[in-house]
Amino acid sequence: MTGRLIGVGVGPGDPELLTLKALRALAEVDVVAHFSKAGRASHARAVVAAHLRAGVEELPLLYPVTVERARTEACYRDAISTFFDAAAAAIARHLDAGRTVAVIAEGDPLFYGSYMHLHVRLAPTFPCEIVAGITGMSGCWSAAGAPIAQGDDVFMVLPATLPESLLVRRLAEADAAVVMKLGRHLPKVRRALKRAERLARAVYVERGTMAGAAMMRLADKKDDEAPYFAVVLVPGWEQP
Amino acid sequence: MTGRLIGVGVGPGDPELLTLKALRALAEVDVVAHFSKAGRASHARAVVAAHLRAGVEELPLLYPVTVERARTEACYRDAISTFFDAAAAAIARHLDAGRTVAVIAEGDPLFYGSYMHLHVRLAPTFPCEIVAGITGMSGCWSAAGAPIAQGDDVFMVLPATLPESLLVRRLAEADAAVVMKLGRHLPKVRRALKRAERLARAVYVERGTMAGAAMMRLADKKDDEAPYFAVVLVPGWEQP
Repeated sequence: MTGRLIGVGVGPGDPELLTLKALRALAEVDVVAHFSKAGRASHARAVVAAHLRAGVEELPLLYPVTVERARTEACYRDAISTFFDAAAAAIARHLDAGRTVAVIAEGDPLFYGSYMHLHVRLAPTFPCEIVAGITGMSGCWSAAGAPIAQGDDVFMVLPATLPESLLVRRLAEADAAVVMKLGRHLPKVRRALKRAERLARAVYVERGTMAGAAMMRLADKKDDEAPYFAVVLVPGWEQP
Repeated sequence: MTGRLIGVGVGPGDPELLTLKALRALAEVDVVAHFSKAGRASHARAVVAAHLRAGVEELPLLYPVTVERARTEACYRDAISTFFDAAAAAIARHLDAGRTVAVIAEGDPLFYGSYMHLHVRLAPTFPCEIVAGITGMSGCWSAAGAPIAQGDDVFMVLPATLPESLLVRRLAEADAAVVMKLGRHLPKVRRALKRAERLARAVYVERGTMAGAAMMRLADKKDDEAPYFAVVLVPGWEQP
């Protein structure tokens, strides 16, 4: 009798945005696995800390390299692929022994998350269940009070890593958009928004639903500094 | 002292996908408002039914016309706009009297939801707060166990109402996509997916996290029947 794998979304950071289903999973599982950079605490673990069962076994999964490098670089790809293979194998050992394992994931497990790398490796062999979570971008537009898309809007999620000309094209085609992973790409994103005539509507959001959240009209932001996880919202609606 | 408006996302349908923050809001507010079609029960109310405070005041907001007609039709636009004006006025009367009002919304309040029409009317005048919710599409890809987007993927939400040629273009540009509001547009969406060479990856999902959920590879679906809220997922990843 093998165990079950549960990908548990913990939402965008505010522990109150945990679902009842996530809490039940945490109360029931034998093992809680979480990703973090070596030497740093897991964000997802911090969100659920108050709900971890006393004595539950924890399985930290430590990224060997930063995730901020392009996945097209071969050395990065090899290191990260070896890492996910090993992480999946560590989880498989628990599942083979009949233990139920929750992998806690920031946001939603199947939307731009590391959990997906484990899911594609383990779902063909073991019973898997997903507990959906509130995405980081949802946390951001909620914090900003910005209605993002309605009716027949075309909505796009665009990584800031895209070339400027492609960003311009996609932004001009979209009724509403979120540009993710800003970091050092902020000046390029700002230029693209201007060329696509979307700068006036753009809202910059840092640390969405977390402590120290900051948001402002992008046009009012004077510097080019942005953390990696900052986003730009381009609401389909004019702001009230 | 005016009251406060809270847009409360109740998630995709499974009552266990309610957040702790949504439950706290429901426990604290004076009035719970919910949308429904005249003569039908509110979906959002059904999701939170077990958590409504005994004796809480309810404010049903009954759509005068179906939302399935194009918003470009003038008669529809007028009727719906008059309806939202009246609904906002009814809520404003409670807020003016110092009562806190929760508007419960399926999915996320600011993502393709009716709440947005109240938000833009009331947010300039009254203090507003948003409790983010899990979107319907998140519920669908979680139920299907389909990793939807990763890394530098461009992700698009496309309404099935778009003209076929535009659907083909957008689907071909997207790494991952969700096509919403299928209903009678399913044959057109199927043709567009085929022309964009995305049919093999497409997954059809009906009633996501609700009772009677159904999902299958779209290529395996033999008929052209689809409810209005059915979706097609086009995952950026090959399925395991």
